[in-house]
Amino acid sequence: MAGPTSYPFLKGHGTENDFVVLLDPDGTVHGDLAPERVRALCDRRAGIGADGVLRVVRTIAYAPEQAGEAEWFMDYRNADGSVSEMCGNGVRVFARFLLEAGLATSPVPIATRAGLKTVTVDGTGPMAVFTADMGQPKVLGASQVTIEHHFWQATHVDMGNPHAVAFVDDLDPHGPVGPLVDPPVHDEDEYPDGVNVEFVVTRGERHVAMRVHERGSGETRSCGTGACAAMVAAAEAAADTPAITGQDVTYRVDVPGGVLAVTWTTDDRVLLTGPAVLVAEGETQL
Amino acid sequence: MAGPTSYPFLKGHGTENDFVVLLDPDGTVHGDLAPERVRALCDRRAGIGADGVLRVVRTIAYAPEQAGEAEWFMDYRNADGSVSEMCGNGVRVFARFLLEAGLATSPVPIATRAGLKTVTVDGTGPMAVFTADMGQPKVLGASQVTIEHHFWQATHVDMGNPHAVAFVDDLDPHGPVGPLVDPPVHDEDEYPDGVNVEFVVTRGERHVAMRVHERGSGETRSCGTGACAAMVAAAEAAADTPAITGQDVTYRVDVPGGVLAVTWTTDDRVLLTGPAVLVAEGETQL
Repeated sequence: MAGPTSYPFLKGHGTENDFVVLLDPDGTVHGDLAPERVRALCDRRAGIGADGVLRVVRTIAYAPEQAGEAEWFMDYRNADGSVSEMCGNGVRVFARFLLEAGLATSPVPIATRAGLKTVTVDGTGPMAVFTADMGQPKVLGASQVTIEHHFWQATHVDMGNPHAVAFVDDLDPHGPVGPLVDPPVHDEDEYPDGVNVEFVVTRGERHVAMRVHERGSGETRSCGTGACAAMVAAAEAAADTPAITGQDVTYRVDVPGGVLAVTWTTDDRVLLTGPAVLVAEGETQL
Repeated sequence: MAGPTSYPFLKGHGTENDFVVLLDPDGTVHGDLAPERVRALCDRRAGIGADGVLRVVRTIAYAPEQAGEAEWFMDYRNADGSVSEMCGNGVRVFARFLLEAGLATSPVPIATRAGLKTVTVDGTGPMAVFTADMGQPKVLGASQVTIEHHFWQATHVDMGNPHAVAFVDDLDPHGPVGPLVDPPVHDEDEYPDGVNVEFVVTRGERHVAMRVHERGSGETRSCGTGACAAMVAAAEAAADTPAITGQDVTYRVDVPGGVLAVTWTTDDRVLLTGPAVLVAEGETQL
């Protein structure tokens, strides 16, 4: 397999939201990172398979205007090849890669298209957990999502990317939410650039579970910003926000791929905590 | 990632039926190859992701009673960790691996749990096609498969493993066949060990298309023995068998992951021809 056109990759995941990681310090290996290459890498049968690609590139080489903030830039692409601002599960995997490669120490500043993100690490080895400051949530009002003949009220939460959070009675793929093969129908005036849709059930006190349909990727096993949006909408609905309680509020958010913790702080920021794992490294010519 | 417990792997596919390939010449790397490891490797989010694992092991080390037939044994496992006899797409990927690694020359004899298979190669490089002799088909009669409130007559074809071939009007996931999330309901007396179910439409003269639900794997992008079973059932239905025509009969079989050719010969054997690709190699600790 190794040859003049082969290049290294890693595969990793955060709560089973999975990524191909490409180390490209100077941006010379992948240039503009063609959408065709991203799609080929992310193809789950003909390629490596992933929800997206995380290119690890020096900020000075890729986004010099942010070079004062962080040595490394997270060039994140969706599985369909499109450019994306940020990924809450991806940024943890990105941080673990930098730490394991000896390219950074905790806390790890990471430049992204959504600005500087700082990831802190607690613990070591497989049980290490990574916390990313996901910034300030914006609760923008209500709309509606529809699947076949079922519809639900949904809260528009912006986490740097748009979310519609719908509270449902049941997440079963055989129930009204269904197998999520197609994107839920949403209000295109409210979401002109598309939307990530979270279906959420309450499991207990400060404990919710969700399934998510991500624009550009379909249903995924986890979505970091989606977990944050679900927590914010749930805390709002329960009148359990830091503005009301006067304290940081932490919810457990179960996703199909694992468990996340989301903390809404009194200074109105959202912290996402969860695992990150690297499972393989190798060479490909895709 | 590399370390005392890491081991090498490759990823490849045949018409997007995809496999993790493990080179284990003496059977000492993976021992009995625990089902847990197979499941971890095949997990599409938390692992590498594949429909199954192809372990490359010397016949003398694994199945010494077959050692006179072939140097290499294909130890094939389904994604759920279960042992499987044979895989028509996998055996082409297995042969390409042996050829690229310089471990064999064409025609490649391969020992399997379904006996000796011989793979011949035509062409070189990415466009090489591989033909495997899949043995004698057995047409065993009719039963029925059901999805929700739709049912179809199905032909029981045995290709070393059991198939139910149902001719349908439409393969659309939004039509009666649906998204194939659950196994189709089948006659458990006819298929006590489960069954692979092929849904087949006629596209033209000696040209069919199919979707398949494989026992142990769910819907896949391709199934080699399934393509053979579909061809045999289609040729029977059209009174277009070699027994009737007196000549070898070749059908094109479109699967979601590509195109296969299936030839039913006058000496009552089925030859499966298609591509095989290796897309990555690396190390993992899964």
